[in-house]
Amino acid sequence: MSIEMINPAHPTSSNGAVATLSDEEIFASHQGGKLSISSTVPLASKRDLSIAYTPGVAQVSRAIAANPELAKTLTWAQRLVVVVSDGTAVLGLGNIGASASLPVMEGKSALFKTFGDLDSIPLVLNTTDVDEIIETLVRLRPSFGAVNLEDISAPRCFELEEKLIEALDCPVMHDDQHGTAVVVLAALTNAAKVTNRALEGLKVVVSGAGAAGIAVAEILLAAGVNDVVLLDSRGVINRDRADLAADTGSKKADIAGRSNPRGISGGPGEALAGADVFIGVSSSKLDEEHLKLMNQDAIVFALSNPDPEVLPEVAVKYAAVVATGRSDFPNQINNVLAFPGIFRGALDAGARRITPAMKLAAARAIAELAESELSADYIVPSPLDPRVAPAVSAAVAAAVAAAVEAE
Amino acid sequence: MSIEMINPAHPTSSNGAVATLSDEEIFASHQGGKLSISSTVPLASKRDLSIAYTPGVAQVSRAIAANPELAKTLTWAQRLVVVVSDGTAVLGLGNIGASASLPVMEGKSALFKTFGDLDSIPLVLNTTDVDEIIETLVRLRPSFGAVNLEDISAPRCFELEEKLIEALDCPVMHDDQHGTAVVVLAALTNAAKVTNRALEGLKVVVSGAGAAGIAVAEILLAAGVNDVVLLDSRGVINRDRADLAADTGSKKADIAGRSNPRGISGGPGEALAGADVFIGVSSSKLDEEHLKLMNQDAIVFALSNPDPEVLPEVAVKYAAVVATGRSDFPNQINNVLAFPGIFRGALDAGARRITPAMKLAAARAIAELAESELSADYIVPSPLDPRVAPAVSAAVAAAVAAAVEAE
Repeated sequence: MSIEMINPAHPTSSNGAVATLSDEEIFASHQGGKLSISSTVPLASKRDLSIAYTPGVAQVSRAIAANPELAKTLTWAQRLVVVVSDGTAVLGLGNIGASASLPVMEGKSALFKTFGDLDSIPLVLNTTDVDEIIETLVRLRPSFGAVNLEDISAPRCFELEEKLIEALDCPVMHDDQHGTAVVVLAALTNAAKVTNRALEGLKVVVSGAGAAGIAVAEILLAAGVNDVVLLDSRGVINRDRADLAADTGSKKADIAGRSNPRGISGGPGEALAGADVFIGVSSSKLDEEHLKLMNQDAIVFALSNPDPEVLPEVAVKYAAVVATGRSDFPNQINNVLAFPGIFRGALDAGARRITPAMKLAAARAIAELAESELSADYIVPSPLDPRVAPAVSAAVAAAVAAAVEAE
Repeated sequence: MSIEMINPAHPTSSNGAVATLSDEEIFASHQGGKLSISSTVPLASKRDLSIAYTPGVAQVSRAIAANPELAKTLTWAQRLVVVVSDGTAVLGLGNIGASASLPVMEGKSALFKTFGDLDSIPLVLNTTDVDEIIETLVRLRPSFGAVNLEDISAPRCFELEEKLIEALDCPVMHDDQHGTAVVVLAALTNAAKVTNRALEGLKVVVSGAGAAGIAVAEILLAAGVNDVVLLDSRGVINRDRADLAADTGSKKADIAGRSNPRGISGGPGEALAGADVFIGVSSSKLDEEHLKLMNQDAIVFALSNPDPEVLPEVAVKYAAVVATGRSDFPNQINNVLAFPGIFRGALDAGARRITPAMKLAAARAIAELAESELSADYIVPSPLDPRVAPAVSAAVAAAVAAAVEAE
């Protein structure tokens, strides 16, 4: 990733205003980090100290020792999300290590607080061993209420998330997978509406079969899309790919068996011929020649950041709806629409896991908020829309309640 | 520990006023925990998001990847103290487990912020294995800047602290040991002044040879006290004790070889006969009969909480200076006088370790603040005195600078 890509020459919109981010401004705002702790109780008198610390606090500790459930209300842990990374897949920067990933995780914690009103702390780890990461979080379990995995490289991220869900009795979610998938589903739901089609009938191509690509394919299949074709760096993923057949148990081999119903093989050209939807979640470019092969009223989500797979000004020549991950184009597909509300709803409802039903409910809630003003340039709410997190949270909590009732 | 001990019938003073803590008040103040996270940067516009999160944050991550030293200024980690406990020796409650210890650790983190202006988070661990605790903190090293060990049982606490200091390149301190020791030394320095004696000539009895007792003995020896006698539940600690001889490498065996220069054996009576100072840091009671055996102008620090080894109204019959750990008697010996300033000074100075010289400097700074108004009832500043943490912090940082110069 070049300097230009990070600090783009093109302007970044700021609530309508146009401006460029300077290095000075970015570094100044990061001095000392982006998080601060405060006490929620006064500590100004001896009496205050006697309540919050000794001797008063001993009453609280003893109550929890007698009834561990009380830790949920008498400590901050139950509503504390740890943002966990090993720094192996940070933004577009790759494996830059735990310490260099910390500013991103601080930002994530700040977003949790601002949008979900959940306390959150970053925990960045000096190990990339999946079992060691799990062991560490199991040991720290009494310290937190939920785990947001972040910027962990594929395919380790799949194994880590699956094992961690088994090891912990609290919500665990790898946001690069599921946060992205939820917002993509919300956006696609509305893009289909704008173009008068049903999700079920769409032919969808997902470019990228890493953390985000696999999760996007999974949620689309769960939402009823029947024809999903994935592309990785070697081309179309199908059951005949020798490299996947050798890799039994892998996510790619698994999804190969459940996607690509027409048995396509080849590259982007073969995948996009007659496709309705392109969803880019890798850094591969999308050739204009291939775009031309898509069906009429095509939908293009070019989500690679900061450089989309195809620029919107090119995509609009062939597509009826175009979305990117960027704030300076219409239809910004940003995880912040999903993760604060998903975790908040899961914790509000006392959920032990984040289920597919909860993710589908989150996507529906995001889509519904844009419904009344739907247009080709407005298929998802703004990341700053204050209605989003409460709506997502309520929908997720309702999904938990419905699952409990159904049991 | 009985209910009466935790929620004592006797009144707790509140800035002069007298009041009793009610359970209702204590539990109400603990609802939802005592800590809160906030973002130090605005997140109200798309521009804000672009600076604090993507794409701007990538500049900061990349800068740290290129120069890891920048993590010290561009993240919150360098000034973040983790308060770590396994819940094995919580207040007077004993081994109540990690989750039940969390309210105490939250309180400690709140004190760090309020008095030392340092961010702090509690990490409570589901393991009591020393090597596993160390391994966990080594893995999390990029997440924090210093470790405050808290409420970890002896003798494990000694091994844990020693090994952790070796394993980490940042300040590590078990506060139950050294915070207590620093404040005791400060108080004893001034008590000796009030009674016109020199530290060097004092005959000191330390009752309790756990975390606090051993550390108190160590710092007194380091400060020049020549005659320190320790008592544990079996009596006076000396080189002839068969149980200690069998326990080579233990802290007790070690201190047995460096204390008790007169070779006393027996129990509290033998220890206190002709002693100048009694320092109680266990829950053993001090008999009035034994008090009578002490020298004239005796100094009695009855620090067991909430029930002192001897009540001040009894102790004053025989002692010239009496101190306790409680806020409702004069001369409260409270760790909060020490730990916020010690960690703040160590982090301000970029120290990798907390050395004996830094602890001695902290004790001197605390003692000096009380010097101008010194009396038998005022040998240490109030825990709420806002001058304390800055003075301790400056003294500790100066000790670091002096050590660097001496190299």
